[in-house]
Amino acid sequence: MTAETVAVGTEILLGDIVDTNSAELGKVLAEFGVLHLHRQTVGDNWKRLADALKTALSRSDIVFTIGGLGPTQDDVTRDGISSALRDQLIHDPLIEEAIREKLESRRIPWVESQARQAMRPASAEVIANPNGTAPGLICRKDGKVVVAMPGPRLEFLPMLLGPVSDYLRSVSDGVIYSTTVKIVGMGESIVENKIKELMEGEDPTVAPYAKTGEVHLRVTSRAASKEDAEEKVSPVVAQIKSRLGEVVYGFDDDTLESAVLAVLRGRSETLAVAESCTGGGLGERITSVPGSSDVFLGGVVSYSNALKVSMLGVSEKTIAEHGAVSEECAREMAEGIIEKSGATWGVSVTGVAGPDGGTVEKPVGLVFTAVSGTGGTTIERNVFPGTREAIRERSVKWALLQLRKRTLAE
Amino acid sequence: MTAETVAVGTEILLGDIVDTNSAELGKVLAEFGVLHLHRQTVGDNWKRLADALKTALSRSDIVFTIGGLGPTQDDVTRDGISSALRDQLIHDPLIEEAIREKLESRRIPWVESQARQAMRPASAEVIANPNGTAPGLICRKDGKVVVAMPGPRLEFLPMLLGPVSDYLRSVSDGVIYSTTVKIVGMGESIVENKIKELMEGEDPTVAPYAKTGEVHLRVTSRAASKEDAEEKVSPVVAQIKSRLGEVVYGFDDDTLESAVLAVLRGRSETLAVAESCTGGGLGERITSVPGSSDVFLGGVVSYSNALKVSMLGVSEKTIAEHGAVSEECAREMAEGIIEKSGATWGVSVTGVAGPDGGTVEKPVGLVFTAVSGTGGTTIERNVFPGTREAIRERSVKWALLQLRKRTLAE
Repeated sequence: MTAETVAVGTEILLGDIVDTNSAELGKVLAEFGVLHLHRQTVGDNWKRLADALKTALSRSDIVFTIGGLGPTQDDVTRDGISSALRDQLIHDPLIEEAIREKLESRRIPWVESQARQAMRPASAEVIANPNGTAPGLICRKDGKVVVAMPGPRLEFLPMLLGPVSDYLRSVSDGVIYSTTVKIVGMGESIVENKIKELMEGEDPTVAPYAKTGEVHLRVTSRAASKEDAEEKVSPVVAQIKSRLGEVVYGFDDDTLESAVLAVLRGRSETLAVAESCTGGGLGERITSVPGSSDVFLGGVVSYSNALKVSMLGVSEKTIAEHGAVSEECAREMAEGIIEKSGATWGVSVTGVAGPDGGTVEKPVGLVFTAVSGTGGTTIERNVFPGTREAIRERSVKWALLQLRKRTLAE
Repeated sequence: MTAETVAVGTEILLGDIVDTNSAELGKVLAEFGVLHLHRQTVGDNWKRLADALKTALSRSDIVFTIGGLGPTQDDVTRDGISSALRDQLIHDPLIEEAIREKLESRRIPWVESQARQAMRPASAEVIANPNGTAPGLICRKDGKVVVAMPGPRLEFLPMLLGPVSDYLRSVSDGVIYSTTVKIVGMGESIVENKIKELMEGEDPTVAPYAKTGEVHLRVTSRAASKEDAEEKVSPVVAQIKSRLGEVVYGFDDDTLESAVLAVLRGRSETLAVAESCTGGGLGERITSVPGSSDVFLGGVVSYSNALKVSMLGVSEKTIAEHGAVSEECAREMAEGIIEKSGATWGVSVTGVAGPDGGTVEKPVGLVFTAVSGTGGTTIERNVFPGTREAIRERSVKWALLQLRKRTLAE
């Protein structure tokens, strides 16, 4: 079975928002073994939307629309589907009632434009939306299917993972099973060279994806059941692992941070951080992992020099002589957070994130990370290219990578 | 002039990566007044890519491809362009030389598969890529133009903002000028109702976009020069501001965090944070603003209860009697970070981010934020729906919103 996504929204084309919804839908389709071969994006224009839907219906078994179901004049998805399926729009009093109840319970006044949300193609089945006013729709006409979902992420995601997944379960046959092998610290070409003939296999397939500082290998097989597919995938994953060694840090949903936390958890060790240029980003990344609290104690965001001194015990002399962005300051930050928190490991980051504040000696992108533990303190210096955002992101990843190296070595 | 984007990569369709590149390209096209009416995404399949390119070339003046220029067998963009434009691939010795030099300087061995990256359509002009091995390409054949850029973000973005922007400047006519009015604390329907007839205008157009907790209104005009367009946009923006009042927090690149920082900067006040469930995310968000260091002193990520006590002075009794997720604890965290840092304002967040750890009394999503300043300490309680990620994101936004309210009131 093939599926296609049509995302609707001028704001997507203008780059005002990043379309994460289509990616979430892609993941769900892959789970159900539905081939997702095309995505299209059009603006809030019913004619272009209707054309996109016709193209999609001509080549795909199920078409998913995302967005354009709101109450405003710009929300044209209902009209576009009606036109592409030649299925007239009708007013559904049950939808209107549900919307009125929802608004009332939140003490929001009824606005006449809300009535647009109560329209639907005559053939459509309604999907309740407990998180917003616009319901989803499953439209079936002449053997064609269009499933419409709202765009706001907090409405879209529960609908996708709940009723739309139930629908997919009821119509899909077979599964795609895949395992992603995650690699850090080895370039894509070298990885590919080491597993060349595995990549030439047709079942399972092995496909590489380069991420910032990482390479992911997706090993995929298609079969009648998950078990059959798994049986083909597992030996190839084992081969990859044995050829690449410790640069493989994890699989599937593992992240560098979850992998590091798992190692520390296994040893009953704890972690605390001292951040300057990343401003809390390292802690944020670590605590994005559910259950991180049994390893991660917390940290200090010592953005000002005064806080570096008062909360981490960095010496004023060090800052005066070497500056806050220095090997010496990174060392004292990492050692200071251990002192203050009692953690087994202390990790620090200090650098020049830019765009201003760079000098010839200390350019924008210069970052020091220190890892302190029972085996002493190690410090790494790096100069990252790119924007403030990129430098901060790379600094967080780099700090995690240094911590991983230390934990592997000890 | 119209443009269309074709993003290439099975990993995008599978949802393994979110396509931020197409959004960045969309922003640049809007700046140059190029109408971006369609986006397509296809996998690493040269036939479907060639079909997508043919469709795009039939309706758009310029087609941009993103991705698929790497050295592996999966990288089919060169082949797809060659097929769609009927322009044969040739080996370019200058590209190969540049790749060899780059690899050598990084001490990476030459792998034969790299030679794929030295192939290009015969008509193509090469765009140097200082951040990676694959060059970009501007292919012109029979009045059609395809611009190919590499997919890795840190290669794509500099090429887009540098040479590709230069190219667009040389070919575009007229400009689109737009101002985005950013609103927090008022729902989309109510906003629309208050500015209804402004939204019915054709030049400038006013389009609403709902974001998590925010509404953005994009006011857009198209004209021969930026000045002419600006003259049409400004009065409408002024009207919107006067009708909506203080729910308008900023414009264009302003973010809630940059708006709050600007207010504090204007008063020479400082800010520090005390975070639990957000793990550093609030500090990260605040320090994403360049120049935040003159207002933001830093903070404590008190993930463990022990750190709440030792680093923020939260009383053990408070935690024992009310728990770490409580109004009382939020208050002591916010007041404690002022005490420790000397900041004018202290903001704290403590909550249950889930997915585990919820109880009937304190469910997943329960979050307390406190804002402490010279006018005292105010605390808000909220229960956010959604995933761990959504709860943490909403908590950060909510904390900033509370701080903004306090600064407006005082």
